[in-house]
Amino acid sequence: MKISDEWFRQILCALYQRRTATRRDLVTAIALNPACVSLTIQHLMKCGAVQGIGGLHSTAHRKQEVLKLNSEAGYFVVVDLEGTRIRIGLANFLGDIRYRWEEDLWPRAVLEVDDIVAGIQVVLRSLDEAERSSVLAVGVSYTGMMDESGAVTAVNLGWKDFPLSERLRERVDLPIFYDNDGFCKVLAERWLGVAENSNNCIYVMAGVGIGIGCYVNGHLLTGEQRLAGEFGHLTIDPNAPDRCNCGKTGCLEAIVSSPNIVRQYLAKSGRSGERLEAHPVTEVFARARGGDPAAGEVLDRVGHYLGLGLSHLVNILNPAVIVLGGDLIAAQDLLIPAIQRELHRHCPPRMIAGLELKASTLGHDSGLRGAASLAFNHAVQDERLLKKITSPLLLRARRDAQKFEMAAAGAGRPRRGRSSLL
Amino acid sequence: MKISDEWFRQILCALYQRRTATRRDLVTAIALNPACVSLTIQHLMKCGAVQGIGGLHSTAHRKQEVLKLNSEAGYFVVVDLEGTRIRIGLANFLGDIRYRWEEDLWPRAVLEVDDIVAGIQVVLRSLDEAERSSVLAVGVSYTGMMDESGAVTAVNLGWKDFPLSERLRERVDLPIFYDNDGFCKVLAERWLGVAENSNNCIYVMAGVGIGIGCYVNGHLLTGEQRLAGEFGHLTIDPNAPDRCNCGKTGCLEAIVSSPNIVRQYLAKSGRSGERLEAHPVTEVFARARGGDPAAGEVLDRVGHYLGLGLSHLVNILNPAVIVLGGDLIAAQDLLIPAIQRELHRHCPPRMIAGLELKASTLGHDSGLRGAASLAFNHAVQDERLLKKITSPLLLRARRDAQKFEMAAAGAGRPRRGRSSLL
Repeated sequence: MKISDEWFRQILCALYQRRTATRRDLVTAIALNPACVSLTIQHLMKCGAVQGIGGLHSTAHRKQEVLKLNSEAGYFVVVDLEGTRIRIGLANFLGDIRYRWEEDLWPRAVLEVDDIVAGIQVVLRSLDEAERSSVLAVGVSYTGMMDESGAVTAVNLGWKDFPLSERLRERVDLPIFYDNDGFCKVLAERWLGVAENSNNCIYVMAGVGIGIGCYVNGHLLTGEQRLAGEFGHLTIDPNAPDRCNCGKTGCLEAIVSSPNIVRQYLAKSGRSGERLEAHPVTEVFARARGGDPAAGEVLDRVGHYLGLGLSHLVNILNPAVIVLGGDLIAAQDLLIPAIQRELHRHCPPRMIAGLELKASTLGHDSGLRGAASLAFNHAVQDERLLKKITSPLLLRARRDAQKFEMAAAGAGRPRRGRSSLL
Repeated sequence: MKISDEWFRQILCALYQRRTATRRDLVTAIALNPACVSLTIQHLMKCGAVQGIGGLHSTAHRKQEVLKLNSEAGYFVVVDLEGTRIRIGLANFLGDIRYRWEEDLWPRAVLEVDDIVAGIQVVLRSLDEAERSSVLAVGVSYTGMMDESGAVTAVNLGWKDFPLSERLRERVDLPIFYDNDGFCKVLAERWLGVAENSNNCIYVMAGVGIGIGCYVNGHLLTGEQRLAGEFGHLTIDPNAPDRCNCGKTGCLEAIVSSPNIVRQYLAKSGRSGERLEAHPVTEVFARARGGDPAAGEVLDRVGHYLGLGLSHLVNILNPAVIVLGGDLIAAQDLLIPAIQRELHRHCPPRMIAGLELKASTLGHDSGLRGAASLAFNHAVQDERLLKKITSPLLLRARRDAQKFEMAAAGAGRPRRGRSSLL
């Protein structure tokens, strides 16, 4: 019996999402008959992509053997083009970030493609030849919007119709997959984070900008032009005086983003003239905890409007899980009660009863891990890359992979920026 | 080569959605190889479910023969449990409504299951035996919410946890499929109406209640508990004084539904004491057209808030098409300019550039046609019903079907209610 590519895909994806599973779990999860599952697993173990890690309940029964993906079965270079910082790293086959290089952008500076290429080269240079041959693809999470031609427009990167895809393709000799940060981050939360494979989950980034990524009915919500998930610029209160960067008033982002929290705090405490950049948002959080009434009022207002915005998402999408990420999770003690109060006020009780509100645990890596999930997902869909993953030719490189950490540790410091080894 | 059920499903659904197609169109549309498509079509033509209706461009080439579903290949009893009226009808295999029985509900009266059963029996009695044996299933579109056990809660029907599914199953000897009216109506618009197979479309019912049904990325948006698409009770303006039936203030429905349009008009023209029921919403539309400033101001406000609500849907879901249905489409000349202005104000230009706003053309039949699409969709997914559809045993009944219209015309008048034959 020939193993179909679709069986490989289903089993690789099921193991990626579950981290560990027995053959029996896999048979239940993916509606393939047991013989097909066994045959596919046998091949994947022989080629080194899947490993057994001992029995469950110390039983010798083969169906109970616990399986996992080999973390070194392939690597991905991952790039997170966030608004204020670019992060570039190496992810293993499981989406764990093994090496990370980051560089702050000067506010309002234009990001150069040379910087991205340099970062990718730093990562690749940290690998020996065998490891380098196991790098499958590059995953890029970008802020802003990409058009059909691969050109990106992102105010925070200083780009207007910048031909990112074309420029990187000229300089990087690996397949490159792209998606915007909302989509990448909900992928990371669903595959590797607290959303735990939920078919209906929303990731909310609340920081310098406000964005979302949504899974609905088991599918990534992208919309007709891949522009779905515009959340920061919902006109949340048509009467609110807050003016947004986009030119409108009353946008959610104009009230609840970190710079706007600082702005409101300074205004309320009679210091409107001061530079926003001089005050991190955490200062406002600390003052609210210390009983400063101006800070308390600002955070009440933020919780009120963020909760109202989330109530729209809940009413329209009926999610099971909302994951909060970004700078604002440092104030979850202050904000979550207000958010919950607003959700109860504006949504039907049955919807709220079925809803979990969680803080992200992926931290600053969520963009990189999202890019890793994106790259994994595309790699197994790609016929040529799937062949590479399921081919025993890579085995030697994989055996050598134990040396990986040493090799990475011995790599020269990057030309610029800051690198760290986990 | 055995024809797989999946091939039958794909070809039946593709023909349902396109109304007519050549073999070549089908090969392009459904990613099956030409030999499989031909074999499946051959079988479906032999059993009478598909018919050839002549060549395209008068060519004799077989691939160019235009195919369609046989409208009499099976029937569905369709039920639309709207808030103020129940409609029961017979739909042919294409979703055309061939017979229709309707009954107004007394405002605030409790709908009895006997009335539904009686309506179904009226429809079935209008058929001769051969036709009756071709009825495949019942499709029910309901307002409100259904829980996992099949119990419906709907204020407008006087039901709280009413065991609809159980009661109907006891009394009706046909498979019955249910879905809420938002889901049914977007199905009708996508399969039979102006949304024309769009993968990202929204149907907006704006009448006595305000509701939506959404297709996103080619899938019906149902959410975790099949409660997605709550639109009327979005708190569209937290400062608006309008009190909603649900107990909140500032709900979209409290401002833009037909009774609330009448309420605002009466209040603005100093006649708050009058009964809302005495004034149809079309009276307000006519007065606005006649230059009555109170009516004009109310409709400006309605257009403003309906547009703001739609801007939330556009920002979150990035649809290609929004279809407006319900009583308010009688005022499209008055409302659409305001809606468009608000969409331009609150959404990114690229999203608006890709968006069409259309008025539904399905009229009062949209619930029945939605129930017909629902029933067709479930019937082809159901193994036993698919066997019935693809079995030549029905052929005799189908040949007799030409008598159908005469038979329906000769049926006794219903016990109560009002029946009409198209």
